[in-house]
Amino acid sequence: MLALLDFRVRQRDFLLEITKAITAQLDLTEVLRRVLYASLAMLSGQVGLVALPDSTARVAGVVGLCAAAGVGIVPHGGNTSYCGGATPHEGGHEIVLSLARMNRVREVDAANFSITVEAGCLLAGVQSAAAEVDRYFPLSLGSEGSCQVGGNLSTNAGGLNALRYGVARELALGLEVVLADGRVLDGLTSLRKDNTGYDLRDLFIGAEGTLGVITAASLKLFPRPRTIETSFLAVPGLGAAVSLLARLRAATGDLVTSFEYLPRSAVEMATRHIDGVADPLAGPHDAYVLCEVSTAREDPALRVLLEGELAGAMEDGLVLDAVFAESLAQRDALWRLRESVPEAQRMEGASIKHDVSVPVAALPRFADDAAAAVLAIVPGGRMVAYGHVGDGNLHFNVSVPAGGDSREFLAKAPAIHEAVHGIVRHHRGSISAEHGIGRLKRHALARSKGAVALEVMRAIKRALDPRGIMNPGKVLPEPGEY
Amino acid sequence: MLALLDFRVRQRDFLLEITKAITAQLDLTEVLRRVLYASLAMLSGQVGLVALPDSTARVAGVVGLCAAAGVGIVPHGGNTSYCGGATPHEGGHEIVLSLARMNRVREVDAANFSITVEAGCLLAGVQSAAAEVDRYFPLSLGSEGSCQVGGNLSTNAGGLNALRYGVARELALGLEVVLADGRVLDGLTSLRKDNTGYDLRDLFIGAEGTLGVITAASLKLFPRPRTIETSFLAVPGLGAAVSLLARLRAATGDLVTSFEYLPRSAVEMATRHIDGVADPLAGPHDAYVLCEVSTAREDPALRVLLEGELAGAMEDGLVLDAVFAESLAQRDALWRLRESVPEAQRMEGASIKHDVSVPVAALPRFADDAAAAVLAIVPGGRMVAYGHVGDGNLHFNVSVPAGGDSREFLAKAPAIHEAVHGIVRHHRGSISAEHGIGRLKRHALARSKGAVALEVMRAIKRALDPRGIMNPGKVLPEPGEY
Repeated sequence: MLALLDFRVRQRDFLLEITKAITAQLDLTEVLRRVLYASLAMLSGQVGLVALPDSTARVAGVVGLCAAAGVGIVPHGGNTSYCGGATPHEGGHEIVLSLARMNRVREVDAANFSITVEAGCLLAGVQSAAAEVDRYFPLSLGSEGSCQVGGNLSTNAGGLNALRYGVARELALGLEVVLADGRVLDGLTSLRKDNTGYDLRDLFIGAEGTLGVITAASLKLFPRPRTIETSFLAVPGLGAAVSLLARLRAATGDLVTSFEYLPRSAVEMATRHIDGVADPLAGPHDAYVLCEVSTAREDPALRVLLEGELAGAMEDGLVLDAVFAESLAQRDALWRLRESVPEAQRMEGASIKHDVSVPVAALPRFADDAAAAVLAIVPGGRMVAYGHVGDGNLHFNVSVPAGGDSREFLAKAPAIHEAVHGIVRHHRGSISAEHGIGRLKRHALARSKGAVALEVMRAIKRALDPRGIMNPGKVLPEPGEY
Repeated sequence: MLALLDFRVRQRDFLLEITKAITAQLDLTEVLRRVLYASLAMLSGQVGLVALPDSTARVAGVVGLCAAAGVGIVPHGGNTSYCGGATPHEGGHEIVLSLARMNRVREVDAANFSITVEAGCLLAGVQSAAAEVDRYFPLSLGSEGSCQVGGNLSTNAGGLNALRYGVARELALGLEVVLADGRVLDGLTSLRKDNTGYDLRDLFIGAEGTLGVITAASLKLFPRPRTIETSFLAVPGLGAAVSLLARLRAATGDLVTSFEYLPRSAVEMATRHIDGVADPLAGPHDAYVLCEVSTAREDPALRVLLEGELAGAMEDGLVLDAVFAESLAQRDALWRLRESVPEAQRMEGASIKHDVSVPVAALPRFADDAAAAVLAIVPGGRMVAYGHVGDGNLHFNVSVPAGGDSREFLAKAPAIHEAVHGIVRHHRGSISAEHGIGRLKRHALARSKGAVALEVMRAIKRALDPRGIMNPGKVLPEPGEY
């Protein structure tokens, strides 16, 4: 295992190979001599060894050896990060620590509404294990078939249901973590309340593996939704969407589970590029909301209530047209439209992306200001700002002008990032609402976060990983960078 | 201000005096030369100075001076803690930093469902400010008329609605904190999603002022409940209560806001000692649940649904009798019964208390085992185990045997604590579910928490407060103690 392994295979292939190899009891060394890639291919790296421990004790053993030798460790989940958080650096001086074999469901406790899983469980697997006992694990994102729950926690994933159920942090009860010196921090309780000292759990959630390796987690479960009303609404714009959300939250008693905003440009790209995706409404509109309202209750009155609220919203000009999914197939079609937007945008050509959040009420002004700033830099740039408006979280993306030159467009990315992030700061927003920092956004973090916050983070890093072996060069900017 | 001030006035009197003094522009020095007490009088202390800064900059100034001089700071909210977290030590070597004058509501943002308040705001004041814009701040506890929101966050308060809305931590969006060196950490965003680096917010929540001083917070608001169904149920015991809760969570679509368990002993004490409190049901029963189900929706079907579920639960033997509050007055009476239990137990004579949590499903076994262990130490001890069963949180209290000697009984407190906490550990529970550690539970923490967790906490303390001036001697046991 001393030869360098290039890091160039897409993670799905990698996992497939690993799974096959484990099943067939093949020599993993051969399998791992393959090239691995960060999923979005914006970064590549090399690694001297991929460790695949299958127990917490073995993770601790690997970390302990690395600590003694001063070798950097890159923890590895499903490798679906957008920010290079799981990609090693060039040079092969680090090892990759894959959690793929730590994939057991340790306990499902329906009465306690909790599940205890190892870090390498696929997100979709956790959802299924909950469903088997008539419970619901609400974290849901595009990559749920390949991302792992340890990565979801390490990056504090958001996704489609965060509006109602919260981000990954809010779904965690307890964690088991291997610290940077190889000791095991056993915080794997499934308690709803525990006020015994500092909140260590939330320090590791969102730390992207830079403070320790999450090996297992207790997670909250919920009653399974039995009534789901999915609608696709035409709205005049983002401001109307924000007002509509507040009305629906109050009227339904906070049953709005998803509230996804799509501009016309996103719907056009999706219907143009993705087979089987169609515009659910008759005429074109400037903007849309995919709204899902759900409850575990048998609730025939909910549809009536929603129709009444939407009728009122139409009278007030907040909604222009609306259609409800009348079957599971129709519901799937609406979600397919929403979920195909990232791929459609890729097929439309080069794009420059931002994953930002501002207070919900500030979204319309933010979007207007950011569009104006972008257009001043790239006249003709096509705004595709979509996403989880209920969380104040926009994927504020810009596609290359129609017929424009991609290379010339992408050269303006730093200026565009700078401009958009400046407007985010003005609204006291976040430059990374749900994708994290990884390697790609460290410099943006240095510019966006106050010096005091950066210094406190660095003090914590020094306290918990004094040798700096945990996911080196991720999240924190170097001291000279801010 | 060099003379030592004894710390012996109850906090309500203290706040009243301070308020009067501020209003009348009196000399605060005189007012503060009064004696102050920790609210439950189990600890007392002395202090050389009470600082009453009225701005974040002035808090920072005070902390900076103390940091330079190496003087310990005891941050002070409403002083309603049960664990002495806000009580200075004897000797007068510390100052009290009261947040009482930091009591402004900085912003209420109904569209963003958020409020930004200073730490010295009374909890009841935050609730009112939210209600004024037709929003709801759900944190609710017995002392809400005198506790301050900074203290609620510093101790991660739980209370009556945590089952549905979460504890204080889950209600916080952003914090402004004065660090131990006097710098201001400005994390006062009201974002729903922000994945930019380590979660510093949750480090200060629940740290009881040992890492810094919370000076302001952005908090989540919710739609105001418009339909509230409060019922008082006789149940066969704790096991039935736990099963009933799971059924009601699923059937109502997670609308159970409070689910408070009371054994017969608690109801008897309350009706015996508290004027105007009566047993709402005709015959005596072993155990009861005060159950509140609520929604912001106009929801006439909810009562029908609940009655159907309870009828089914009666057939299955989970519920023995039930009554619904038919008016606000009846609802108040049911809550008065629940809330008068602590006072009634005080009037019943000496008691030994535990604020513990275990996974919800483990509650019945825990309560049985703990009762047996206590009775082996104190035959005739009267169990009064009540509380937030929906959170797995029992106030497992023991009253002196009828006719027993109080002093003799209280002398057995250490043995009883040890036995009960041992059973808590066996169920992977918490020895302090919502009251925190303060001064009183440091030794219990040292015995209950793993050595790794304690060492990580200490590393964080050293990183953020290297001189140890923030609330010295609170929360963390001394290194020799574990």
